[in-house]
Amino acid sequence: MKLLEDKIRADGKVYDGDILKVDSFVNHQIDVPLMNELAKEFYHRFVDSGVNKILTIEASGIGIACLTAQYFTAPVVFAKKSRSANLAPDVYTAKVISYTHGNTNNILVSKDYLGANDRVLIIDDFLATGEALFGLCDLVAQAGATLCGAGILIEKAYQAGGKAARERGIRVESLARVASMSQKDGITFVEE
Amino acid sequence: MKLLEDKIRADGKVYDGDILKVDSFVNHQIDVPLMNELAKEFYHRFVDSGVNKILTIEASGIGIACLTAQYFTAPVVFAKKSRSANLAPDVYTAKVISYTHGNTNNILVSKDYLGANDRVLIIDDFLATGEALFGLCDLVAQAGATLCGAGILIEKAYQAGGKAARERGIRVESLARVASMSQKDGITFVEE
Repeated sequence: MKLLEDKIRADGKVYDGDILKVDSFVNHQIDVPLMNELAKEFYHRFVDSGVNKILTIEASGIGIACLTAQYFTAPVVFAKKSRSANLAPDVYTAKVISYTHGNTNNILVSKDYLGANDRVLIIDDFLATGEALFGLCDLVAQAGATLCGAGILIEKAYQAGGKAARERGIRVESLARVASMSQKDGITFVEE
Repeated sequence: MKLLEDKIRADGKVYDGDILKVDSFVNHQIDVPLMNELAKEFYHRFVDSGVNKILTIEASGIGIACLTAQYFTAPVVFAKKSRSANLAPDVYTAKVISYTHGNTNNILVSKDYLGANDRVLIIDDFLATGEALFGLCDLVAQAGATLCGAGILIEKAYQAGGKAARERGIRVESLARVASMSQKDGITFVEE
């Protein structure tokens, strides 16, 4: 989506260690008018999927998830992160490695808020290795819910997550797909 | 605000240790259509304050902050929590004790995203002791920004935070003010 690609080119910053910093409009400051346009785009792409619940993961997915959910008139459920394994009987859990932060989190969702009648759209800010996405898909499967797909703001298309997800049959809609990035040559996007 | 009070009466759960659990519509699952009505109410109350930035704190404030921000056509900045003191020169920090979680967090905001030209509306889900609110106000002061006020979903009016904030001259608008709560007698609200 050109709107997001242009914003990433203008304000995204590339750092060593494969880091694309979008703190000024996604992860710390949130450009809400922009996000609202992206939320409408997610709605447009998944309008025929019967979505009745949006699933995301704290913290930076929550904003775009809520803005998207208002167009579906659906609730958001956000998976919580816990550094300790939570073996409570009333939660679904999955393990998610964060390569960015160099740690492993258990993500969890209460069984009260995800169930067999839910048709779930996963929304998240980034897709790279797919760790977070597959963790969320695991929670959806545990709940016996139906996965409609995943709406992602920024996919690092040169990493394995997006390809692996699509090969599993997951419908992934990424609004910007980074083909390559470097401090020297800047950012290029996959031409769709 | 009757809409929120009714929802708290219907779906809020009171637990030992002064806990009001609103996980089904605020803190874990987010009732976005409801939150959108509450967001409009915040807009209505602060429309004449010249707000150009919404400040909140991760994670559960982000949803309502983004929904509110769209009416102001303003960005959201969310303060991040860190268990370790962050002495980086490029952030404003404040110390916040969480009585709910029994720990102390440093909250931080990048100096890039809060400054002297900002007219800030703080949005948060709960106000009880005022720890989080005063931490956020501290960040606003450090940035030399102007504080327009605070929009709170649920204030525990029998705790000290709301009174202390108003005595400091902070305009606090709470959409539901809990006067008392117990498992036996239920929840009562301050009559406005």
